[in-house]
Amino acid sequence: MAKDQKKQLRPKADTPKGFRDYFGADVTERKAMLDAIGKVYELHGFDPLETSAVETVEALGKFLPDVDRPNAGVFAWQEEAVPGGGSGDWLALRYDLTAPLARVAAQFRNDLPIPYRRYAMGPVWRNEKPGPGRFRQFYQCDADTVGSASVAADAEICAMLADALEAVGIARGDYIVRINNRKVLNGVLEAAEVRADQAEDVLRQIDKFDKVGREGVLALLTTGRKDDSGAVIKGVGLTEAQAAPVLAFLTSKGDDNAATLEALRVAVGGSAIGAEGVDELAEIARLLAAMGVTENQAIIDPSVVRGLGYYTGPVFEAELISIPDKNGRKRQFGSVAGGGRYDGLVERFTGQKVPATGVSIGVDRLYAAISLSRVLLREGPVIVTVMDRQRMAEYLKIASELRAAGIRAEVYLGNPKNFGNQLKYADRRDSPIAVIQGENEVSKGSVLLKDLYLGEMLADSMSREEWKAQPTQFEVPRCELVPAVKKLRDEINLRVADLHRQDSL
Amino acid sequence: MAKDQKKQLRPKADTPKGFRDYFGADVTERKAMLDAIGKVYELHGFDPLETSAVETVEALGKFLPDVDRPNAGVFAWQEEAVPGGGSGDWLALRYDLTAPLARVAAQFRNDLPIPYRRYAMGPVWRNEKPGPGRFRQFYQCDADTVGSASVAADAEICAMLADALEAVGIARGDYIVRINNRKVLNGVLEAAEVRADQAEDVLRQIDKFDKVGREGVLALLTTGRKDDSGAVIKGVGLTEAQAAPVLAFLTSKGDDNAATLEALRVAVGGSAIGAEGVDELAEIARLLAAMGVTENQAIIDPSVVRGLGYYTGPVFEAELISIPDKNGRKRQFGSVAGGGRYDGLVERFTGQKVPATGVSIGVDRLYAAISLSRVLLREGPVIVTVMDRQRMAEYLKIASELRAAGIRAEVYLGNPKNFGNQLKYADRRDSPIAVIQGENEVSKGSVLLKDLYLGEMLADSMSREEWKAQPTQFEVPRCELVPAVKKLRDEINLRVADLHRQDSL
Repeated sequence: MAKDQKKQLRPKADTPKGFRDYFGADVTERKAMLDAIGKVYELHGFDPLETSAVETVEALGKFLPDVDRPNAGVFAWQEEAVPGGGSGDWLALRYDLTAPLARVAAQFRNDLPIPYRRYAMGPVWRNEKPGPGRFRQFYQCDADTVGSASVAADAEICAMLADALEAVGIARGDYIVRINNRKVLNGVLEAAEVRADQAEDVLRQIDKFDKVGREGVLALLTTGRKDDSGAVIKGVGLTEAQAAPVLAFLTSKGDDNAATLEALRVAVGGSAIGAEGVDELAEIARLLAAMGVTENQAIIDPSVVRGLGYYTGPVFEAELISIPDKNGRKRQFGSVAGGGRYDGLVERFTGQKVPATGVSIGVDRLYAAISLSRVLLREGPVIVTVMDRQRMAEYLKIASELRAAGIRAEVYLGNPKNFGNQLKYADRRDSPIAVIQGENEVSKGSVLLKDLYLGEMLADSMSREEWKAQPTQFEVPRCELVPAVKKLRDEINLRVADLHRQDSL
Repeated sequence: MAKDQKKQLRPKADTPKGFRDYFGADVTERKAMLDAIGKVYELHGFDPLETSAVETVEALGKFLPDVDRPNAGVFAWQEEAVPGGGSGDWLALRYDLTAPLARVAAQFRNDLPIPYRRYAMGPVWRNEKPGPGRFRQFYQCDADTVGSASVAADAEICAMLADALEAVGIARGDYIVRINNRKVLNGVLEAAEVRADQAEDVLRQIDKFDKVGREGVLALLTTGRKDDSGAVIKGVGLTEAQAAPVLAFLTSKGDDNAATLEALRVAVGGSAIGAEGVDELAEIARLLAAMGVTENQAIIDPSVVRGLGYYTGPVFEAELISIPDKNGRKRQFGSVAGGGRYDGLVERFTGQKVPATGVSIGVDRLYAAISLSRVLLREGPVIVTVMDRQRMAEYLKIASELRAAGIRAEVYLGNPKNFGNQLKYADRRDSPIAVIQGENEVSKGSVLLKDLYLGEMLADSMSREEWKAQPTQFEVPRCELVPAVKKLRDEINLRVADLHRQDSL
């Protein structure tokens, strides 16, 4: 009873709901991906910015700008007001990387180069209901140009996004950057004589284009429709004649940019803002071509509806259209990045409109896509086993020699009594090779190298007897340890690559 | 009046007190430093672990384990209790990387390899009073081995720490890893017949050894002393005979490890735990030597007092003893890393004692040290200026060609009307070269390259007339743009390196 009570007092070893841990290769490979993206951003002249996780609620704005659900929010707390210490301010964890950029652009407006090209990568936090695959801390990776009204800045972001996707291993043809423009939609609404008070409602409905399709949106824009549950959704109340150009806009993508632009010119009718929007898209298309970006990398596509409510000019989205998995099967992943032009960035702080454009990559989804097709290499360390605790110095020396040759290596530091445990440990560490030196080897001036991968690889293709007969370990002179381990490691890597080739045939 | 009121409603564009932003090179160079350290950790068989910033207060423990000031604490908040959503738990930002490791080691104890070698790097948060150079978010970079009682694990951490410091550019001889052992101190206290209830008090006093020296500590251990302000600090009440072995312990560092160990054997007298501690230090010294670590890299030093109250066995500290600045002057930086062995890591959660040892590098201080001596290279992008807005496509094409050759390049995207502004921008971007193509160049099929660094560099050594006469720009055929920019960039880098050599003579 007393023991039970004591047990209850122990804290639970759990991550909070909606948070998770990343181990080993998931950390290093995601980092390698971010490094590759960062290199592309740098090459384009973007400079890194790293802000703190914590902002004042005042600077951040308490709620997400593009989410209107009531329980969507931030993690916030009030500082204790202590004389000379805490200010009594409300503080919060950043919910994206754009809000801190806005604060920085306002705070350092006299020191930053203008235009200011910056990139940022790091975790953001959302106080939302967690769910399967839905976490409350996740990574974003953004690039923005602040202070340039030129559509060249938008074109540059699109070209850079294509470069970044290719840099992390997405093949050309497996992704597409789609570009739309809010001004074109504004022109269409003007041409269709949609009332100003209906515009927001129209935006809400066309946002469902991906889900409900052409007929569904037509119904939503006019008299309404029943959803799958039978509930009636009220229509916006446009006439069919008013809805027609809106639908024409959404479906005006042609075989190439020239055809799409022609269709858009018709859709915007005589609207000046619409014509401006189409001109911008035409200019973006021309600039992308000049940069060598082809239409199977980035294309004008008016069916991109996400973000049209938030952005004020060009809108972009990168979609993975077909990613081969390890067996060569193609899989769809959907959108992995989105962005566009927005003018209100700094205005909250300074009252001045500052033009800005940028993109945010959804790091976790992109990582999931590239993990799907990656070849697993044996990245575990060489394990130097402990046969004789008295010889620990020699084992550490062996590991040091291997490391000096650039080979990842470690000595087994658990209780060495049970040798089986050492091999189990090596297996758990994904180790390719064990180095063994017992009394027998010491007397002969040699070491044993055990190929920890061979048995596993052969097990599928041969009988237990054949498998057991395979020479998985061999002896080398102590002085030839390093070259022998290097050779064996190279052989193992070749074998792994071979196996993968066979798998994907 | 109305205008004033509106202005007051605008949010302040400020970081919260105690937080800061990192720009450009400070981000990339700190990252390069962490990457180099991570590579060393990986090579030693340590695996990365990335936990969330947020933990439950329950798992974290609300207060810092090694700080007893009342206002030292964490940033914490209570979740809303929402059916199906928020749990009503108290959540907090992690204050170090060890507490999350403890939680992970307990939560995944059946899945992790044992021993578990892990490294982690990332920000931690402390709810402390900010001050000059004292921030409430800062980086840590830790490596720990969980589940090994062997002092080989401690020796390995010390060797790895030395490797890591050298990997980031600290020369051998400019740093030292000092090693002490809490068990030796326990032995000394036992030999001096210090009562159990006095031990904590003794620890508090010897922690001041760095500040008050031998005589000061003697006074503090016995009858007390007056501090600089004249306030009387009560002594522990030991006799001089009891205090003597404690002081002998603190000052027992000899010319080499052998001499130090001999002095320590005397200091611990007949104490069994003391003898065990000295044996451990002797074994660590032997294992370090086997790994090729010399005594000017890592050495037994009983004057290391920091951490003796917290750790239960070996204690380590890395100090930068002399770091040359850009002018070759040597500067001291003090401690940049600390660690040791502790047994209570997982016990809070599971009731089981699990041996662990590890080190934490103070990233910001180490970065400050290596920044001091680093040579600044021109890392800014080549700027393609805009002479004619109609030719934007051609300017973007030029930048693309340069990037395809691996040269960081961008087009000026601000208002191009004032060419002086473009050059000011290039200067602010630390740009080495501007590419200029006006009507004249277009007609000749050429471009101008402007060396933006030459003028600046010559300005010191010549008159204004001479300086103005310097040919800082020259014309090349458009088709030779890329090789010409490469050549000029290499020349500029050579010049910078030359200048540095002269500076340091």
